[in-house]
Amino acid sequence: MEQKLILISNDDGVSARGIGVLARLMRTLGEVIVVAPESARSGAAAAITCTQAITLRRCPDMEQEGLQVYACSGSPVDCVKLALEQVCPRRPDLVVSGINHGDNASCSIHYSGTMGAVFEGCMKGVPSIGFSLRTINPKCDFSPCEEEVVRIARHVLQHGLPQDVCLNVNFPETPHFAGLRVCRMGRGRWVQEWISANNPRGMNAFWLTGRFLNLEPHSEDTDYWALDHNYVALTPIKLDMTDYQSMDLFSELSASSE
Amino acid sequence: MEQKLILISNDDGVSARGIGVLARLMRTLGEVIVVAPESARSGAAAAITCTQAITLRRCPDMEQEGLQVYACSGSPVDCVKLALEQVCPRRPDLVVSGINHGDNASCSIHYSGTMGAVFEGCMKGVPSIGFSLRTINPKCDFSPCEEEVVRIARHVLQHGLPQDVCLNVNFPETPHFAGLRVCRMGRGRWVQEWISANNPRGMNAFWLTGRFLNLEPHSEDTDYWALDHNYVALTPIKLDMTDYQSMDLFSELSASSE
Repeated sequence: MEQKLILISNDDGVSARGIGVLARLMRTLGEVIVVAPESARSGAAAAITCTQAITLRRCPDMEQEGLQVYACSGSPVDCVKLALEQVCPRRPDLVVSGINHGDNASCSIHYSGTMGAVFEGCMKGVPSIGFSLRTINPKCDFSPCEEEVVRIARHVLQHGLPQDVCLNVNFPETPHFAGLRVCRMGRGRWVQEWISANNPRGMNAFWLTGRFLNLEPHSEDTDYWALDHNYVALTPIKLDMTDYQSMDLFSELSASSE
Repeated sequence: MEQKLILISNDDGVSARGIGVLARLMRTLGEVIVVAPESARSGAAAAITCTQAITLRRCPDMEQEGLQVYACSGSPVDCVKLALEQVCPRRPDLVVSGINHGDNASCSIHYSGTMGAVFEGCMKGVPSIGFSLRTINPKCDFSPCEEEVVRIARHVLQHGLPQDVCLNVNFPETPHFAGLRVCRMGRGRWVQEWISANNPRGMNAFWLTGRFLNLEPHSEDTDYWALDHNYVALTPIKLDMTDYQSMDLFSELSASSE
């Protein structure tokens, strides 16, 4: 039987430690192709590159048997698009992205390049999972995540995922997980987001920073609560963003226009 | 009574014709502040700028009484974040984005910088609307959209929007609209997305292009169907991407980990 084919990307770049861990783990489950940005693309969301040509470069020094590695000049979504159409010899069985340095829980999913890559895999009909570790330590230890990453990936390889649904998996900042919780995306926003950047030409210049404000800190069913309480947070995410509940609110607008 | 305050952004850049139309129309409804990218950011999605300082420059030549205009070096989301925290004298009553050159229906919403700005406004609790015109003509005529833009914006100023819900409004490529339909986001994907870019150094280089594949062309309740049939498509969009329906599917994973 043909081996499973697993496509890996991320937004921290092809040389990031997190994607190295993910490639090693996925290699135990099948054949692996890595197509990732040549440098960090944090906060790239699902951005695509419309105004420049994208380059793709093979990285033989990072390869092993059953593991091909490519660096791409584009965004995480570009990487997945290019991999699926120009690199993979057949349709992958799984797309995984990460392991991201920093969590992508709550509203951060909207800014996340890690999850941008996951949305793209999902949009193309491939079961897709994003993995992120809550940490601010660049030398963070990914080893506590390894067993869960393999267990979740194997589960998805076996059972698949519903159409247009992907997974957002976030690991807490502790080596001792309390367990895994299936969560919803919590409500939150970033606040106090800018500091002035001094500069020599008198321009108005700012650095993006910010503090996360959890808008429902006591709701035990959210991804953020799970991470705060040392659980692995697994959130099924759907591509369809329609708010079906509020559709009737706008019937007045459609009625008066026809 | 204080005038309404309306914040405008886009992804085509501060000088694009579509945002000029939007600024003129919104000026009839209140005081207007434009903070938009200094040049085009098509396909920026909800990307944020983490690795560079952002500059903000006032554009007095584009201003009138009740209309302030700023050009920002960042993404559409950066523009909205910066506007809300550093530019607006008070919380705006409305965020509008566009009018985009090209539709943002179906899966294109995920790549859209126009809608990235809208998500950001919504995340910050301000009623937010994205407007896009299906066209490939850079000299397209926005005037058929004007009446509907004002009508929808006025409706939202009067009635507000549900918490964490924003609007994606797409106009068809015709001067004669068949009416307005409240739609869901249709299923679709982009295919045949890359062409080789010839280049002098023998690199593997590609341009992103592609053809939209409508995965449910006969479903009359989608945004794409509405546009295809000359309707204005209004889709309520929610920030919460959780797929509540599939949560039970993963209980096996949580059970065995605790």
